Amino acid sequence: MPHALVDGYYPFAQDFRSPLALRQSIASVLDHGCFGYSDPSIECTAAVASKLDETHGFAGAVTQNPETIRWLPGLIPALHHVVRVAQLRQMDAKKNSHVSVASVTPIYYRFLFTGPCEGADVLRIPLLATANGHELEYKLDYETLDTTLGQPTCKVLLWCNPHNPSGRVWSRAELLSVAQLCVKHDVLLLSDEVWSDLVYDPVSTPFTGLGALLEEVPGLRERLIVITSPSKTFNVATLNVAFGAVPCPELRRQFISVGRDKAETPPFGYAAALAAYTDPECAKWRLRLLDYLRANRDHTYDVLCRNVGPQHLKMTKPEATYLTWIDMEGLGVTTELGPFFQRHGVALTPGTPCGAASGVRLNFATTRNTLNVGLERLLRGIDEVCNGS
Amino acid sequence: MPHALVDGYYPFAQDFRSPLALRQSIASVLDHGCFGYSDPSIECTAAVASKLDETHGFAGAVTQNPETIRWLPGLIPALHHVVRVAQLRQMDAKKNSHVSVASVTPIYYRFLFTGPCEGADVLRIPLLATANGHELEYKLDYETLDTTLGQPTCKVLLWCNPHNPSGRVWSRAELLSVAQLCVKHDVLLLSDEVWSDLVYDPVSTPFTGLGALLEEVPGLRERLIVITSPSKTFNVATLNVAFGAVPCPELRRQFISVGRDKAETPPFGYAAALAAYTDPECAKWRLRLLDYLRANRDHTYDVLCRNVGPQHLKMTKPEATYLTWIDMEGLGVTTELGPFFQRHGVALTPGTPCGAASGVRLNFATTRNTLNVGLERLLRGIDEVCNGS
Repeated sequence: MPHALVDGYYPFAQDFRSPLALRQSIASVLDHGCFGYSDPSIECTAAVASKLDETHGFAGAVTQNPETIRWLPGLIPALHHVVRVAQLRQMDAKKNSHVSVASVTPIYYRFLFTGPCEGADVLRIPLLATANGHELEYKLDYETLDTTLGQPTCKVLLWCNPHNPSGRVWSRAELLSVAQLCVKHDVLLLSDEVWSDLVYDPVSTPFTGLGALLEEVPGLRERLIVITSPSKTFNVATLNVAFGAVPCPELRRQFISVGRDKAETPPFGYAAALAAYTDPECAKWRLRLLDYLRANRDHTYDVLCRNVGPQHLKMTKPEATYLTWIDMEGLGVTTELGPFFQRHGVALTPGTPCGAASGVRLNFATTRNTLNVGLERLLRGIDEVCNGS
Repeated sequence: MPHALVDGYYPFAQDFRSPLALRQSIASVLDHGCFGYSDPSIECTAAVASKLDETHGFAGAVTQNPETIRWLPGLIPALHHVVRVAQLRQMDAKKNSHVSVASVTPIYYRFLFTGPCEGADVLRIPLLATANGHELEYKLDYETLDTTLGQPTCKVLLWCNPHNPSGRVWSRAELLSVAQLCVKHDVLLLSDEVWSDLVYDPVSTPFTGLGALLEEVPGLRERLIVITSPSKTFNVATLNVAFGAVPCPELRRQFISVGRDKAETPPFGYAAALAAYTDPECAKWRLRLLDYLRANRDHTYDVLCRNVGPQHLKMTKPEATYLTWIDMEGLGVTTELGPFFQRHGVALTPGTPCGAASGVRLNFATTRNTLNVGLERLLRGIDEVCNGS
């Protein structure tokens, strides 16, 4: 089966079939046989509300006010919608309508593409990288964060927790600072929390949803949009089911009004979300998936670090996600790393669009066999540079 | 099963299960079980290219250049994207970036909602209505079309053929004028041709796709975007599969660049399109559907006209679509007709958002039983007005 790692073909995690219970839930829609416009069932809405309450920190508020939910056909549209809200507000206030959009870098490239597509600037906040031998760690640079969010045109922070591509699960303390700085500078905070069900060690690096900080950070409620989806965990990215929680009614109204161009959520997507969040088999499947991915993560780290010295390669050991960020500045390759490795038959997400030219992103959500093929090809490419072979 | 007509619940045409062959095509995706990001298969692309060539008039050009196809998760996003292209062009030319969007009225309300959502004005071009007894007919007002498209800010015509809600299948001569006026005034022409497979009498009112006029109208190629989907015919609106044909590479590049916020097309959508356009059973199913809908159309007309005088009610006999437009100006109801009939238990699309307050749109794509329930309730409402009962 094709996989991003060796075919450059983007079904990510195409190798993993969705849980049987989820597929059965979809099959029941297929049995129904009518695919006209549809709304989520009461059960599906309740399941999603519970999910937002329990995992993302809303603590019952969404279940009590299910209108807080904004159904979406994916996460990417939401990035665009929040930028439009900021632009709309500038227009309504008859202010200079120019809006800048901040993100920490490196970051999943679609975050950096959103601003320009909407006629907004991008402000990059480089994360602080430290290396311990091979191991690369990323931390927040609070000073740059503060200065950047304080720029007069900065109206939106596109945030990602757990962070793609570093795999960081931001701590409660880090998130508190981010939320407080957004309030201080009156910046809308879009928190993409799609990776929150793929945290490897919930004890040492527990996931905190931004919804959990609403009480502690006055003013956050008026600025927060949390988005998530079962897409990454359950391999249902193209079922077009995602959702946001927008606790502030005024912000919600605006968020909806600028997103009228969005596609529908298919009944298959609702069925998938219902099963993913309520079926005990899906919960067990997720734990097995985590075990498999954790082993792949460690294997990837071991193979690369055993074969390449830290002067040539540094990499993250992600706390979450099925992505590893590999920095190869030390290789001294002067061309783009993505196309370079593509020629060696391994498809890595190039670093430049993610805001960090010396890195590449490796997706290890595949079978061990496919992973090994990809790692061999990656090593062959590195070997060519180091030994000129 | 719920239906828009009597429940105000929008699965349109929810009553009709999609063809078995289409559902089997979807089942094969379900068997595969991986729902990560996916591209259309070569077979699916070829089927859609053929469809655009044969039905929409591109005469082999799309099959020869499949990159002409723009995959979309629905038709509505495309309306927004073309307005953004016009705005982008104004900005690039450093002209006054204000853009107006023209549509003939009445029209499906989403056409009128697109402009304001994108920060553009709407220019309405009322169709000329003539009545022959009960029967209402709509024609183009060429003079108003010419003047409106000639306004300096007018940069887009959102066009619909066959026309929702009048059910008109525009003639080749009418379309030639529309295309020529768009070229004359340098206006982008977005032709939504989603109803083209629901034409009742292809001999007397043959469908002409705008692609068929490319040779005859120089300059049309640079301005034309045709969009369609199997959604209406095969009741697959929420499978999020739609596509456009954009023969001009420069226009296509811009159309894609402003639509990066769009959702994915699910693998189920690709499977549905492949079956809809290639499986002989789906072709036969469509002919049976047309027979059923034609009988419903005639029945609706007969029941309403038998019971209500032409001074109170006039209506279209649509040449295509499963929609009838009913004008009840003669009833003298001073409140909105939509909510008025909703109180009588029948859900008709209100006229005001469609740009014609005295009308309502009735969807007859339902079982005869449900249709009769809806018609009875409609007649009861009318009776209350006429006889004060």
